[in-house]
Amino acid sequence: MYELGVVYKTIQRADREVAQKLAQYGSATVHEAMGRVGLLQPYMRPIYAGAQVSGTAVTVLLHPGDNWMLHVVAEQIQPGDIVVAALSAPNTDGFFGDLLATSFQARGARALVIDAGVRDVKTLTEMKFPVWSKAISAKGTIKATLGSVNIPVVCAGALVHPGDVIVADDDGVVCVPAAMAPRTLKAATAREANEGEKRAKLASGVLGLDMYKMREPLAQAGLRYID
Amino acid sequence: MYELGVVYKTIQRADREVAQKLAQYGSATVHEAMGRVGLLQPYMRPIYAGAQVSGTAVTVLLHPGDNWMLHVVAEQIQPGDIVVAALSAPNTDGFFGDLLATSFQARGARALVIDAGVRDVKTLTEMKFPVWSKAISAKGTIKATLGSVNIPVVCAGALVHPGDVIVADDDGVVCVPAAMAPRTLKAATAREANEGEKRAKLASGVLGLDMYKMREPLAQAGLRYID
Amino acid sequence: MYELGVVYKTIQRADREVAQKLAQYGSATVHEAMGRVGLLQPYMRPIYAGAQVSGTAVTVLLHPGDNWMLHVVAEQIQPGDIVVAALSAPNTDGFFGDLLATSFQARGARALVIDAGVRDVKTLTEMKFPVWSKAISAKGTIKATLGSVNIPVVCAGALVHPGDVIVADDDGVVCVPAAMAPRTLKAATAREANEGEKRAKLASGVLGLDMYKMREPLAQAGLRYID
Amino acid sequence: MYELGVVYKTIQRADREVAQKLAQYGSATVHEAMGRVGLLQPYMRPIYAGAQVSGTAVTVLLHPGDNWMLHVVAEQIQPGDIVVAALSAPNTDGFFGDLLATSFQARGARALVIDAGVRDVKTLTEMKFPVWSKAISAKGTIKATLGSVNIPVVCAGALVHPGDVIVADDDGVVCVPAAMAPRTLKAATAREANEGEKRAKLASGVLGLDMYKMREPLAQAGLRYID
Amino acid sequence: MYELGVVYKTIQRADREVAQKLAQYGSATVHEAMGRVGLLQPYMRPIYAGAQVSGTAVTVLLHPGDNWMLHVVAEQIQPGDIVVAALSAPNTDGFFGDLLATSFQARGARALVIDAGVRDVKTLTEMKFPVWSKAISAKGTIKATLGSVNIPVVCAGALVHPGDVIVADDDGVVCVPAAMAPRTLKAATAREANEGEKRAKLASGVLGLDMYKMREPLAQAGLRYID
Amino acid sequence: MYELGVVYKTIQRADREVAQKLAQYGSATVHEAMGRVGLLQPYMRPIYAGAQVSGTAVTVLLHPGDNWMLHVVAEQIQPGDIVVAALSAPNTDGFFGDLLATSFQARGARALVIDAGVRDVKTLTEMKFPVWSKAISAKGTIKATLGSVNIPVVCAGALVHPGDVIVADDDGVVCVPAAMAPRTLKAATAREANEGEKRAKLASGVLGLDMYKMREPLAQAGLRYID
Repeated sequence: MYELGVVYKTIQRADREVAQKLAQYGSATVHEAMGRVGLLQPYMRPIYAGAQVSGTAVTVLLHPGDNWMLHVVAEQIQPGDIVVAALSAPNTDGFFGDLLATSFQARGARALVIDAGVRDVKTLTEMKFPVWSKAISAKGTIKATLGSVNIPVVCAGALVHPGDVIVADDDGVVCVPAAMAPRTLKAATAREANEGEKRAKLASGVLGLDMYKMREPLAQAGLRYID
Repeated sequence: MYELGVVYKTIQRADREVAQKLAQYGSATVHEAMGRVGLLQPYMRPIYAGAQVSGTAVTVLLHPGDNWMLHVVAEQIQPGDIVVAALSAPNTDGFFGDLLATSFQARGARALVIDAGVRDVKTLTEMKFPVWSKAISAKGTIKATLGSVNIPVVCAGALVHPGDVIVADDDGVVCVPAAMAPRTLKAATAREANEGEKRAKLASGVLGLDMYKMREPLAQAGLRYID
Repeated sequence: MYELGVVYKTIQRADREVAQKLAQYGSATVHEAMGRVGLLQPYMRPIYAGAQVSGTAVTVLLHPGDNWMLHVVAEQIQPGDIVVAALSAPNTDGFFGDLLATSFQARGARALVIDAGVRDVKTLTEMKFPVWSKAISAKGTIKATLGSVNIPVVCAGALVHPGDVIVADDDGVVCVPAAMAPRTLKAATAREANEGEKRAKLASGVLGLDMYKMREPLAQAGLRYID
Repeated sequence: MYELGVVYKTIQRADREVAQKLAQYGSATVHEAMGRVGLLQPYMRPIYAGAQVSGTAVTVLLHPGDNWMLHVVAEQIQPGDIVVAALSAPNTDGFFGDLLATSFQARGARALVIDAGVRDVKTLTEMKFPVWSKAISAKGTIKATLGSVNIPVVCAGALVHPGDVIVADDDGVVCVPAAMAPRTLKAATAREANEGEKRAKLASGVLGLDMYKMREPLAQAGLRYID
Repeated sequence: MYELGVVYKTIQRADREVAQKLAQYGSATVHEAMGRVGLLQPYMRPIYAGAQVSGTAVTVLLHPGDNWMLHVVAEQIQPGDIVVAALSAPNTDGFFGDLLATSFQARGARALVIDAGVRDVKTLTEMKFPVWSKAISAKGTIKATLGSVNIPVVCAGALVHPGDVIVADDDGVVCVPAAMAPRTLKAATAREANEGEKRAKLASGVLGLDMYKMREPLAQAGLRYID
Repeated sequence: MYELGVVYKTIQRADREVAQKLAQYGSATVHEAMGRVGLLQPYMRPIYAGAQVSGTAVTVLLHPGDNWMLHVVAEQIQPGDIVVAALSAPNTDGFFGDLLATSFQARGARALVIDAGVRDVKTLTEMKFPVWSKAISAKGTIKATLGSVNIPVVCAGALVHPGDVIVADDDGVVCVPAAMAPRTLKAATAREANEGEKRAKLASGVLGLDMYKMREPLAQAGLRYID
């Protein structure tokens, strides 16, 4: 249930350095490092391939077909933030285009994550302003109804509090609660530590069956090989 | 309700110059300029990114799994036309491939908009023949049942009359009725007139809140700021 | 109905040369050459554009959220194989990433076709390891339940036996039963034989209506032209 | 493309008697009698089983989340009408409930066909006011934006003109253009004429293969029987 | 982000009487009384028509294909509770059947709201144990992985805290935060107060246009009537 | 891959008595008894609630929009059979209505399972001829293209051989391979043996936690209770 018509100006952002460092590990590793939770639904897709970012969430609640609050949230953006836009009901209209992107970028926003549609995607791609969205749509919106800024929101099935860390790449979007960010960074770093070694082994033809010592548990589970 | 088995050879095309000029504004601006109507459903996606076209609609009604009428419509294409293909029932088969595209291109068609599937998308991309479709599918079709050419059709939820202007880009597809094309072009031109100025202001850090004078109406609507 | 917990080590692969040669014709032509059957559902999409492959199927049955058997199937891969992964119930989790891809590639696999999600798509693209999947998702999986390897599976609506030929490109994925592969290759070759000539004719402005002699059957079917 | 903000008070309704008589044949027979066209998409479902109605269309165009125009259309209803509500963009909110149904019923409306959601379905069922809709949803709507009444609309993929005949039952909804209604009634009557006789034959064990004389065309098409 | 492997035994339930009284108003009125928020997605449907309940939420987080925690949550049920089951990833398996329903009913549960599938729906209907779910599926589940009980969950897009009031009927499911329940009850009661009077007026033929005094605002918005 | 244009007249049906007895256990129990496999996708829904049947599969492969082969399969029906209709590509048209149902019923068919649409559902309900389908649609079909009868088919994601046992009820549809039917019946009987006792215990307030001795494994898995 959402509180409407309110803008929280002061939020507790996750540690800036931690927030920044999580980008390099990507959404898959970060979500594993948190214990396999925190992902937004996989229908959230990037408007262009290759972007990989992280930052602190500034949240906004919008109503279907109404993007007024995106102008309100712009003022609350600080450098390093990622805007997370939730909807009070499902909608695929194009809430965000090149003018808003110019403004967000000028304020220091790194990306937009929106559980709705965006437009001007060609220009956004040229501007290198990444967006993860549910749809692409030329459909415009009006400016008539109040939502809220910096309240906890449910975006694409995930609960996001203002100040949480968002990590997004071609695989999807994950939300790391601010309090968990430092230990998640540590866990992600640890997970990646021997990835290179593993990759080299697998590339040389060693099987995961042997590298991960799976043959015995598979046999115990009853796996039968038939020639 | 559709009239079946008929080809209208003479249609009233929108003014050629107007039809051509609308492309530059893109589907989002044109749909705004019309009063926020005329868009096809957002499930219509381009087979490759970056194409931006406009042209006069030549329409065709197809039946599921049957592309016979695409050969019939080819003959009715004039340079600058965009073929708009509607289906009598939902279907995702691959109605259109590189051979038909070669023929359409030879006749002067600028694009295909089809509420179904297409195939040979790699070759179509190399040929630079843009298609907006509901699906990509290798599934072939037969040639057995009559539809119609140049009747009014419902394509992806939008009513398209032969001769209307179609504008399509990465954001989607919009249909401008022929009679509305001149005033839509004027309105689109006006909308774009001071876009550069706005963009510069926003890029310099001016907020939309101030540029669009939204603070007062937001306050009147009851927006509260909490420190 | 699936047999669980079993790995068939010996399968009858389609002729290697035939399997390799089918790639060049692509999924659309091959499916036509088989009599318009054998296609997987069109929701199966490549993670990057442009790949066009064929190979012999090594099959694996997975359970939702569990990728254990992908490690088991890796050992059964021979050079020129394509892994076809079916699910016992619908699921979009990310079953496959860069480490498994490294292993599959080292074993000689040409591609993965999976009726579920994949992740690390940026790296997979850089590695040039093509995947056709139902979804992209960062969501990780566990390793807890036995499926099977090299049993007949239903993948995206199509029945695939181990050893069948898989042909996949931007248009989709088709399965050619091993026994039908030679005659399908012959039929596909025949279909392509005069494609160049047809394309040249169409490019010169000849209509399909005339090239395919459709005017008479259209008239017989009752098509009326109205000036 | 829709004309907005206008109410056409005078429409040409299909012949009342014809409109009423079509109900008895049901949507399937009527759509066959028209040549297999005119159906709304099958996602349009009745809120309760068993209703079977026909009537003349009074149309209304609504915007997502806004049911203002349903109050406007109420005044245009005449006894024997069916209200057909189209949306300017996809939406599943609950636009219509028991109060509006009371008003529509008082005006003589026989049903509502709406390409969106409805609510109070328990009460509507008790009131015996049938609705065919895309969704059931408790979500309320606002009253802020003008649509139009009695313009041609696209509802669930079908073009409906004011005055057309709507036939709806458990199988779906079909729109019969006013001008085609008399001949469609005749054709539907003819189709049903010997249904009883056919049914009796089939019930006695006679096969459709023999009753419809299909054995020869099947053999000619190449059907082979294998013992 | 979810805390896993924990059961909160003590939760602050909304006032029992308030929770009970909300049922009579139904989900549509309650959601309006809260300011048009709090609804679960409309894909949540009752397994049989006619049930209308309210109660205090006991929450449980489940993993796809694993219903272990439903046995854990059973112990935390108190008379008048409604179990709200969320999933860590989308899934349609049949998590709940007649045995669990017998147990829940014995503990005093009034209903289950589950963002996944249920089975044994025929028996559940006979038992008069209402369930709102995303799917009906015979697919069984395993008991292998820990979720949590009585943590805040996102169920069908809505945030539900343990102790909140759930109101569910044929129109859908709404969640009322415990703190808002008393004033929501008051507002719902007020909304219903003169419904009977309104219904009588509308039934007598008075138009909403007049009863709600809409003619002037419609004219001001520019509505034109054409004879 | 399907063999087209062929009717296998002789099939090996599962034991008649076994096939009949499975109905009483329902789809959920039977699928569990087989090891949790064999289910058709949950989008297959009964056209009316309450039917619970089992029988031997007679299969038919249809093409989109073409129901010719349903007349061919009618002749192959023996008393106690259930017709299983698969499609060569997804389609929701209404392939089957009251006349075909009359014929099927006269031949002794117990039900139809079809991965497409049906119509005349009101009459089918009155006739007590149960159908499990993907859709309900008034859309008619033609009779033009050959499919096959009594070949193995993939229906709603499940592989069905002619002669297999189909069990269908309100929870869904399951396919039991003929060879597995006797042992599945035995396993289903065993599963149900002490259901009554379990239900009585649970109804008396005993928890599944205790009845199934789950407390220890839950503790071992790390479940923590917090007062």
